[in-house]
Amino acid sequence: MNQITQENIQVGEIANGLPLSIPVYRVQGDGSGPKVYIQANMHGAEVQGNAVIYQLLEQLKHLPLKADVTLVPYANPIGCNQKSGEFTLGRFDPITGTNWNRMYVDHSHLVEEFIETHLDCSLEQIKASFRQRLLDHTNTQLAQPHDRINTGKRIALNLQRLAHEADIVLDLHTGPISAKHLYCPEYAKPSASYFNIPHVLLIPNDFDGAMDEASFCPWWKLQQAYAEKGRQIPVFTEAFTVELGSQEKIDLEEALNDANSLVSYLTYKQAFSGSPQQPEEMTRYACTLENYRTFYAPMGGMIEYTAKPGDKVEAGQTIAKILRMERYLSENPLNTISIDEDAITILHFASASVNQGTELFKFFTKYEIL
Amino acid sequence: MNQITQENIQVGEIANGLPLSIPVYRVQGDGSGPKVYIQANMHGAEVQGNAVIYQLLEQLKHLPLKADVTLVPYANPIGCNQKSGEFTLGRFDPITGTNWNRMYVDHSHLVEEFIETHLDCSLEQIKASFRQRLLDHTNTQLAQPHDRINTGKRIALNLQRLAHEADIVLDLHTGPISAKHLYCPEYAKPSASYFNIPHVLLIPNDFDGAMDEASFCPWWKLQQAYAEKGRQIPVFTEAFTVELGSQEKIDLEEALNDANSLVSYLTYKQAFSGSPQQPEEMTRYACTLENYRTFYAPMGGMIEYTAKPGDKVEAGQTIAKILRMERYLSENPLNTISIDEDAITILHFASASVNQGTELFKFFTKYEIL
Amino acid sequence: MNQITQENIQVGEIANGLPLSIPVYRVQGDGSGPKVYIQANMHGAEVQGNAVIYQLLEQLKHLPLKADVTLVPYANPIGCNQKSGEFTLGRFDPITGTNWNRMYVDHSHLVEEFIETHLDCSLEQIKASFRQRLLDHTNTQLAQPHDRINTGKRIALNLQRLAHEADIVLDLHTGPISAKHLYCPEYAKPSASYFNIPHVLLIPNDFDGAMDEASFCPWWKLQQAYAEKGRQIPVFTEAFTVELGSQEKIDLEEALNDANSLVSYLTYKQAFSGSPQQPEEMTRYACTLENYRTFYAPMGGMIEYTAKPGDKVEAGQTIAKILRMERYLSENPLNTISIDEDAITILHFASASVNQGTELFKFFTKYEIL
Amino acid sequence: MNQITQENIQVGEIANGLPLSIPVYRVQGDGSGPKVYIQANMHGAEVQGNAVIYQLLEQLKHLPLKADVTLVPYANPIGCNQKSGEFTLGRFDPITGTNWNRMYVDHSHLVEEFIETHLDCSLEQIKASFRQRLLDHTNTQLAQPHDRINTGKRIALNLQRLAHEADIVLDLHTGPISAKHLYCPEYAKPSASYFNIPHVLLIPNDFDGAMDEASFCPWWKLQQAYAEKGRQIPVFTEAFTVELGSQEKIDLEEALNDANSLVSYLTYKQAFSGSPQQPEEMTRYACTLENYRTFYAPMGGMIEYTAKPGDKVEAGQTIAKILRMERYLSENPLNTISIDEDAITILHFASASVNQGTELFKFFTKYEIL
Repeated sequence: MNQITQENIQVGEIANGLPLSIPVYRVQGDGSGPKVYIQANMHGAEVQGNAVIYQLLEQLKHLPLKADVTLVPYANPIGCNQKSGEFTLGRFDPITGTNWNRMYVDHSHLVEEFIETHLDCSLEQIKASFRQRLLDHTNTQLAQPHDRINTGKRIALNLQRLAHEADIVLDLHTGPISAKHLYCPEYAKPSASYFNIPHVLLIPNDFDGAMDEASFCPWWKLQQAYAEKGRQIPVFTEAFTVELGSQEKIDLEEALNDANSLVSYLTYKQAFSGSPQQPEEMTRYACTLENYRTFYAPMGGMIEYTAKPGDKVEAGQTIAKILRMERYLSENPLNTISIDEDAITILHFASASVNQGTELFKFFTKYEIL
Repeated sequence: MNQITQENIQVGEIANGLPLSIPVYRVQGDGSGPKVYIQANMHGAEVQGNAVIYQLLEQLKHLPLKADVTLVPYANPIGCNQKSGEFTLGRFDPITGTNWNRMYVDHSHLVEEFIETHLDCSLEQIKASFRQRLLDHTNTQLAQPHDRINTGKRIALNLQRLAHEADIVLDLHTGPISAKHLYCPEYAKPSASYFNIPHVLLIPNDFDGAMDEASFCPWWKLQQAYAEKGRQIPVFTEAFTVELGSQEKIDLEEALNDANSLVSYLTYKQAFSGSPQQPEEMTRYACTLENYRTFYAPMGGMIEYTAKPGDKVEAGQTIAKILRMERYLSENPLNTISIDEDAITILHFASASVNQGTELFKFFTKYEIL
Repeated sequence: MNQITQENIQVGEIANGLPLSIPVYRVQGDGSGPKVYIQANMHGAEVQGNAVIYQLLEQLKHLPLKADVTLVPYANPIGCNQKSGEFTLGRFDPITGTNWNRMYVDHSHLVEEFIETHLDCSLEQIKASFRQRLLDHTNTQLAQPHDRINTGKRIALNLQRLAHEADIVLDLHTGPISAKHLYCPEYAKPSASYFNIPHVLLIPNDFDGAMDEASFCPWWKLQQAYAEKGRQIPVFTEAFTVELGSQEKIDLEEALNDANSLVSYLTYKQAFSGSPQQPEEMTRYACTLENYRTFYAPMGGMIEYTAKPGDKVEAGQTIAKILRMERYLSENPLNTISIDEDAITILHFASASVNQGTELFKFFTKYEIL
Repeated sequence: MNQITQENIQVGEIANGLPLSIPVYRVQGDGSGPKVYIQANMHGAEVQGNAVIYQLLEQLKHLPLKADVTLVPYANPIGCNQKSGEFTLGRFDPITGTNWNRMYVDHSHLVEEFIETHLDCSLEQIKASFRQRLLDHTNTQLAQPHDRINTGKRIALNLQRLAHEADIVLDLHTGPISAKHLYCPEYAKPSASYFNIPHVLLIPNDFDGAMDEASFCPWWKLQQAYAEKGRQIPVFTEAFTVELGSQEKIDLEEALNDANSLVSYLTYKQAFSGSPQQPEEMTRYACTLENYRTFYAPMGGMIEYTAKPGDKVEAGQTIAKILRMERYLSENPLNTISIDEDAITILHFASASVNQGTELFKFFTKYEIL
């Protein structure tokens, strides 16, 4: 049975002066596999990843482990304890409005100087040295005077420090009311088929503040820079945002399915000496980020979502009905909303009350079979 | 086809000085039936009642109407437009924390003086005069200097003024994640079987601030007072809180079912000249308020609700699992929660994140078949 | 130098499963004085009491102490860490809207049975036995199954357990934008002159859920019950809510003044062997609770508060101006608000944006010199 | 007396289906002056600008007006009516967390194509044609299908449409607890001395989503582009964010001072035929944006702000004290915070409770006399 250890890392302090900490679990493999980092619940309401980490830990105890795996549930100790009304208000810092998953730091600028001095190094040297640069740079930022770092950045940098140690980074999220989907960097597209996730969003290899991007962008840019110099090296790291379904929901059986999905991918990445899980057969759909369409509420009202997460809809098909009862006599109180192109419904808003312009749906459009 | 008219009633002003108003719809019957008042959405997230009012209006146009029916969707214009995060924060005034449905005014104290002067009046006189007292008293309170009335009270009094004109008052609410249930005053128990609602909560004939109580308490106390004087009169008014299911959800088909349920009850109360709807056959369960058990979270954690609204559970049966991943190694991370008596699950909390002591479930215990 | 000890008491658990605790500081006197309990910050934004406890602790180290003093800063670990926007949202439970200072439990019902069995006991016996009843009853309630107690009640009962051990209870609060004032039970009116607080609100000896009431009501009712039986005993406990000024503000110098004010009162109550502080000479005004007038915003708008906390205003005098810029051309945009009776301004609302019916001011009316 | 007209522009719809509108006031000059656009209260708690607009309107009625002036109080009808607790939660969209003042659209990309076709046009033609481009482009975006525009963008575009008609744009804001300061684009530095504002923040001529930037960036880039082609043209537009002081405060006398300050600047810009106001003599300090230092809370705690807005502080000087009462016995409970360089305190956080990393202060560092 593999040993699990726990460390608690302080990531801040709250108003009464007490520390904010996150629990970090580590399972050691035989040293021959990749290093894996998995975190969950960066957004407060997106709790299901904690259940997936539970199911993973239960399995990792017994699996023939080559990889070293680090797992962080409750990655954001402010977000997961912040209520406003009955619901968890954890998508953004309640003080500043900043999305907690847009606070990570881009280290891609390290590439330029690095490549000058490491052009002819071995792959192993490149990987080790560049990883060290990422860690050093993260540590330098954390070592700034405390008055230079804001709350979200301090949490993000602490997590990023853990992530930069890994070859594989999985950030477990959920949508509001959502089908399972995977944010996959374009260069890692072949890996997407090893997850049991039918919807794959191909994102460009650019940085927009999220954990997955912070983890893979520097490595992808390193590979690009070497290619420009005429040397082909692999992208040494893969990072994904795994959207597990809907927020505000714990489902332990589904968490086991998702744990199996992650084990299937990790099996493919040589994390185990045997083959604990193979990917399920399913049709997987891919959509590029530019075709990932946000559909805003065209009017304010009370909404019935008739297109459900995972539903394919055709151009012209009804996706929602919007009821407006203030002017029942003078306007049509029940409005039918449709979309003007074929699409797969990925997620919809969590509430039935919408202002004009509220983000109502997200759709895969111009999607293909992966 | 029956005529529907609309009036907008001002119930307050917001911070930019603009009026807050509610839309009031009226359908006139032939004058031979009862007066009916139906409102919805006093709590901001409890939107389904608006859809029920929509479906009722669509039917009332065509039904052979004896009753005069007044319908108010969006009864609380602050609550239904108040967001905090994605969800509607409309259970209480965001400034004071006061539950919007605890702001109505008890007029039962009018009984004592009234009965002295109306002991031998005809039933018709009693009904008309006491109703006038209720209306006068409500109007007097609304006519106070503006600096004497708070925001919620002003909304409540305006609604109460409409309700006091009616013989039948239906306040449409929802629970968080909830089965359909009916708050029914004990004296009106025979009426409960005419709604298509399987769970009936029998509440004492006391005042606790809600619309249904404000509507029926004075009339019930009037009947009691006459009885003490040796005269038997009916309770002239019936008032119910109808809990339609879950909040933050619009379902137009279910709204039609619920509209039919209300029409069935109103048919029994002679609101129509024909019989548009009969009650469905179903087993109806009744529970007294003192046996309506609130089950608080025995520990903080992430919760999977295994008992679903409507489920019967037995003593000792698992109703929820609570996951705690901060001390995976040193305590049991997955806790099974059970209840110690037989019960019917009526509703559960809307979020999967709970503090110790959060209201987790409400159960019918010691329930009977109605 | 007196020894200070610290104990941390667990009062709940948050959603990640970690305990919520409060720090309890104790300073032991020579045993000859009263027992004193002081808490602060039950409402999250009312932080100044923590600074007063700081200044008290600094002094208690060195004062000739007869009393045993227990001090609890951060009495509510949820409230003081709950942000919504920049401000602390800590007046009520963000999930339920319940005011945190309305969750204490009334034990007055214990009097009836107690007096039957203790009618002829010595004063010491009465005091000790009744105190034990209060403690036992509080402990019994805390010992209920966890699923029977909600979050706020569990915090309140834990604090109440500490308070019931004391002869003197001081609950440190603040208003929104406020002058210093004291909630003083009518029977304890003579003590009010020993605080350096110019505004004294005389409250009836009834229970409305607050800490001060939970502390003194049973003792006052005990005294009343003995009086009815023809025996005169003292009210053994005094409890006050001390309103220190405005919320969201720490002022250490003012905290020292307030600490001195409390020491002055405690000196009068024999807490010290010498006389560390005498009350300042000042005019103190008293007002009964029924004359403590809430002035609601007569219209929605943007408000300039011209009457400041502590200001005496005369009938007809302007207390505020309300600006409404939506209808500059069609109505008077600048409205002058006055009060119709002489008053002392005690506090006003913290924001400049008000709905019609927002609590704008509180005034002492029909006040007298104490 | 100059005529004032009002128009209400719809900028969205709320959840009950009712329109959100903003009031637009226009005062017509004799046509010989610049066009001026002034808006206020884009952030909900920043209300004082409405009072400044009130005082401006009162003056504009009577002044010898050359300019056409458009004034919009309550520019954001969601923000100014959104409460959470007592305070106005209006800095960001409560659903998404997006800062309302980061939703404007950059039209600088229009420059490239424009200059190709207008290189040799007259200044008047350039100004008129480019303005028309800005308006057309804004209108095109607003004319998109409703499902393509989110709530904040729709409000922003409607305001931007008004602003693009003007030569001078003044966006009235406040800080949390703040001294008066002016965001001034570097090219418009000479104008800063005409405001009665002692602190001037020189911002680069880049776009970061705010109204002032959206208004001047395209014009500045146009001027740059002509310069590259060898032709010198003026920057035709000036835009400023005017920070009036603290949020959640209406002060009509101070609003008159600020109105005078704006009239002074507008006098310099030829908005009047006479000279209604001259700038006050005062020392004005300038600081570049890169030297505008944010000072984050180095620890969590309860804070006394000892450096007040407007205060000059020296390196090493105490700016705040942080009290932490959880570990009074084991750590120093009172912490003195200083800054390591000379600075002028511009603003500080509005609450006394801070997490580690909360934005505590903003300082001018390396500032100069303007």
